Amino acid sequence: MKTLPLDHFRTQFDQLLLSEIRNSTSDKDLVNAVVYTFEAGGKRLRPYLIRCLCDELSLGRNVADSLGKAVEVFHTGSLIHDDLPALDNDDLRRGQPTLHKVFGEEVAILAGDFLLVHPVRILLRSSIDRERLLSVIELWTETSLTVIEGEFLDVTFQDTKNEKTLEEVHKKKTGELFGFCFAAPVLCAGEKETASQMLALGRDFGIVFQIADDIKDMTATRATLGKTPGKDALLDRPSALNVMDLTQARKVIDKKVRRLLEALPYEGFRDVIEHLCKQIVSK
Amino acid sequence: MKTLPLDHFRTQFDQLLLSEIRNSTSDKDLVNAVVYTFEAGGKRLRPYLIRCLCDELSLGRNVADSLGKAVEVFHTGSLIHDDLPALDNDDLRRGQPTLHKVFGEEVAILAGDFLLVHPVRILLRSSIDRERLLSVIELWTETSLTVIEGEFLDVTFQDTKNEKTLEEVHKKKTGELFGFCFAAPVLCAGEKETASQMLALGRDFGIVFQIADDIKDMTATRATLGKTPGKDALLDRPSALNVMDLTQARKVIDKKVRRLLEALPYEGFRDVIEHLCKQIVSK
Repeated sequence: MKTLPLDHFRTQFDQLLLSEIRNSTSDKDLVNAVVYTFEAGGKRLRPYLIRCLCDELSLGRNVADSLGKAVEVFHTGSLIHDDLPALDNDDLRRGQPTLHKVFGEEVAILAGDFLLVHPVRILLRSSIDRERLLSVIELWTETSLTVIEGEFLDVTFQDTKNEKTLEEVHKKKTGELFGFCFAAPVLCAGEKETASQMLALGRDFGIVFQIADDIKDMTATRATLGKTPGKDALLDRPSALNVMDLTQARKVIDKKVRRLLEALPYEGFRDVIEHLCKQIVSK
Repeated sequence: MKTLPLDHFRTQFDQLLLSEIRNSTSDKDLVNAVVYTFEAGGKRLRPYLIRCLCDELSLGRNVADSLGKAVEVFHTGSLIHDDLPALDNDDLRRGQPTLHKVFGEEVAILAGDFLLVHPVRILLRSSIDRERLLSVIELWTETSLTVIEGEFLDVTFQDTKNEKTLEEVHKKKTGELFGFCFAAPVLCAGEKETASQMLALGRDFGIVFQIADDIKDMTATRATLGKTPGKDALLDRPSALNVMDLTQARKVIDKKVRRLLEALPYEGFRDVIEHLCKQIVSK
């Protein structure tokens, strides 16, 4: 199977995201605020994974787009809240001033709220098989609640050197959304049992992604990162590098990636993940 | 039909709310924050209306409880965000210090997020007929998005003397949730057409409730209000009393109540609404 290039996908998908929000509300100020955030860009890695898997499962484009938009809309809403002064207090996101810096905190809080709730509407309006839609909405709701729990734990837990809590934050805050990306297309295809297996594998991929991100946060410059580097250490926030050094972290990633590739049941998707992991680790 | 007393209902329902949140997450800090907010109390008027209507429609107790919890959980989440310094900056809610004053803004933002997303889980786990559940979740999602749009408009619109925008804020921010309370039980009973009619009547009741609330905000004392009185005028926020005086406002309420009572298709529920309107207006 020829792998869809991420850059190519991103260009198409960004148009979909913009059109989704423009059609979602008649409030122009709300649209402007959200469009600002979407236009700052983003890797769109989560919807990309969904699209690749949906293609392999021969699910229609609408299913891929709907699942992808749901995930990215929520993810964007959760980043908007994450950047707020009371949380990470970040002035930069994807190289641009954060939403609250430009539009004010009140707009950031409520635009975030809108994006956190909106995904269910996207799923309801999708062409996902009606018989399977309730299971997909259920998986989605559990996923989104777990991500919020992860963020809650992230800002409230005190002992940032505690390996167990650190792992829980990463699993909930990052792993869970990737779990959904791996499992939801399989659920839409009606393969319930494989969906459970994929949920676990997606969570593992999320951990790899998070550790790689923590490494980047420590080693990158502001220009390459697009946000303030070294924030984790500065804010004493949970980073994998609180409990292991760089060499150990890279070893953990290698081991997890090997296991993941062995276990993935879809060949084309495995190629995609292998390719992505090489890129993530080399950065 | 003998009308269920609101005070009696509230005592039972508060126990349900507490048990819902205690079972919703293993994060004790999150539970503590939400329990704090629930324990500050609240009229529980929305779940009460749902319960009365569900009783008249002979829907099971689980349906009434689930719909009621969904609405009240969301409403509580939205009040938590509403009270934040960047929005209404309110130190008191229901006579108690607001959540962010006690637990910090970061906890208030994320606990609010959790409560805004949680209702879909409550609906999914309810005993609402599976055939009708998608329609109920759809109505719920549209309702919650509209409420957030209303709050967004509330904090972003400049001309607080503009009657049209003021009406839109009230309709979206307050009317919509009452619309759900009137319509959702009817939808659960499978009466789709009457549900549309009830949606409109519930929105009207919401407007009556909002105007009465605006009157209270201007005339009450801190002790009877349980929150800071006169905030609307102080913050130049949309209040019905920006565009009409007290006498006019009371006349509008009277007229709307009369029309509402004439149009309500359920006799027992009409008695409940009549009784409530008398209380609301006399305060």
